[in-house]
Amino acid sequence: MQLPDTNYIIAPDPTLRRLTRPVQGFDHTGAAVEISVVEERPLTIYLNRQEIVTAMTIGDYPEYLAIGFLRNQGMLADDEVITAVDYDEELEVVVVRTASQTTFEEKVQKKTRTSGCAVGTVFGDMMEGLDQVVLPQAELRTSWLYALAHKINTTPSLYLEAGAIHGTVLCQGDRPLVYMEDVGRHNAVDKIAGWMFREGIPAHDKILYTTGRLTSEMVIKCALMGIPVLASRSGFTAWGVEIARQVGLTCVGRMRGKRFVCLSGEDRLVRDIDPDSVPDEARKSGRKGGK
Amino acid sequence: MQLPDTNYIIAPDPTLRRLTRPVQGFDHTGAAVEISVVEERPLTIYLNRQEIVTAMTIGDYPEYLAIGFLRNQGMLADDEVITAVDYDEELEVVVVRTASQTTFEEKVQKKTRTSGCAVGTVFGDMMEGLDQVVLPQAELRTSWLYALAHKINTTPSLYLEAGAIHGTVLCQGDRPLVYMEDVGRHNAVDKIAGWMFREGIPAHDKILYTTGRLTSEMVIKCALMGIPVLASRSGFTAWGVEIARQVGLTCVGRMRGKRFVCLSGEDRLVRDIDPDSVPDEARKSGRKGGK
Repeated sequence: MQLPDTNYIIAPDPTLRRLTRPVQGFDHTGAAVEISVVEERPLTIYLNRQEIVTAMTIGDYPEYLAIGFLRNQGMLADDEVITAVDYDEELEVVVVRTASQTTFEEKVQKKTRTSGCAVGTVFGDMMEGLDQVVLPQAELRTSWLYALAHKINTTPSLYLEAGAIHGTVLCQGDRPLVYMEDVGRHNAVDKIAGWMFREGIPAHDKILYTTGRLTSEMVIKCALMGIPVLASRSGFTAWGVEIARQVGLTCVGRMRGKRFVCLSGEDRLVRDIDPDSVPDEARKSGRKGGK
Repeated sequence: MQLPDTNYIIAPDPTLRRLTRPVQGFDHTGAAVEISVVEERPLTIYLNRQEIVTAMTIGDYPEYLAIGFLRNQGMLADDEVITAVDYDEELEVVVVRTASQTTFEEKVQKKTRTSGCAVGTVFGDMMEGLDQVVLPQAELRTSWLYALAHKINTTPSLYLEAGAIHGTVLCQGDRPLVYMEDVGRHNAVDKIAGWMFREGIPAHDKILYTTGRLTSEMVIKCALMGIPVLASRSGFTAWGVEIARQVGLTCVGRMRGKRFVCLSGEDRLVRDIDPDSVPDEARKSGRKGGK
């Protein structure tokens, strides 16, 4: 697909009322206040006739979330033909229909082991296929990192409007292409994976930026998506770094103003700009340290 | 149990080397750096003979995490007698043994529906029993909130040492009792639930402080634990607020310096201190906005 020469292909739309809600309360002075709060809705994802999962999501792009979730769970192979994606907003259900049967039964069985949803692990599944991952050679110019961070942090978003939400941005060079937000950081990544699968977007020349931490799950997900670079404002976990090094994923974290740390895949970095020419973040730069 | 008159009963120990690891990398100037990164390990939790879940955890207090997880998943009733908790560090397995059979089979079946672990939902289960929840009357002095925030934010922690970790603190009045940290914010809550169950700690007079967002899951978990007050540096989700109001849970969020917002259970608030007497947070106050 030829990418149009706009800034974003998909950007957050903080004006969409159904994604946030004004809520009344009281502030520290006892004064009545009304603040904008992000929505959180259940979305039940079906693969053909099989109910797979109920996800808590902000509710935008349910089709991309469903496809991306199934992709990232290994339930939709590369060659799978999606015949339809039916979303019922009232029932809060999305059904992904495929031409042939998929391997979902086996997967769903496995899921009984990884039921610690609150704990955020699909580890049993996520490790699958990791040993076959070969990430492409790619260059990562430090000037891109700074440009991306600035563009993303100044993009009108639900985060800047209401906070308490994670963002993930698919980027190419110094250009952010698709900026997804969700109450679950993995939902945001899944929505991007769904968009890439649906639109046939290649991964080899992309950069995945997340506001979330570079944990093992996030690293594995990025690697399985075939994206060679993962960048974040937030920090790392030791296992995340270990896996990134095993699969040759470039991990850049703690991106703040001119500062960042690269703990894996330093070889892709092209230091084409003097960090001292990059201004430090203002106190009110919007984004704060993600978790 | 009579609580000893110390500051913390359990506090983070950032000096425990097995919880963090020095990792080599490169900073924005290209200089080699070594930073401290939190560990992330799988822990497989068994209830008697049944494998329940593999959680990704920093690895401390595995017994409390296992008991608390099972409690918060509704797999361990109040009257359940725990005969043993066996932890094997090498196998990364913890087995909780009970005198009688539990309802886990039924629960495990349900889990196939909520397998979206990465999405962080155990919604199907979490709503269970919520309609029976009656939270006690309790007062929440604003002076306590400020004192707690100051004590917690200045307590030496893995967060201050390595970042990329969530914290949850069980408090009573203006005193933080148990401060747990983990890579998964729900693990930290579960470790506190496990400690309370093990030590027979009453919930009616406690305050739960979390660095994480006040999502539906967090609100439901706090309510099911019987704790009437939930406080956070971070923001809210609309459904979290809705559920908090339904069950009569007091929710205070966006706690920064003198500022906070109460979106549910305002009636418990006793405004016994002038907010203007509270200093604003310094730029380098450690904690940043959690997600």
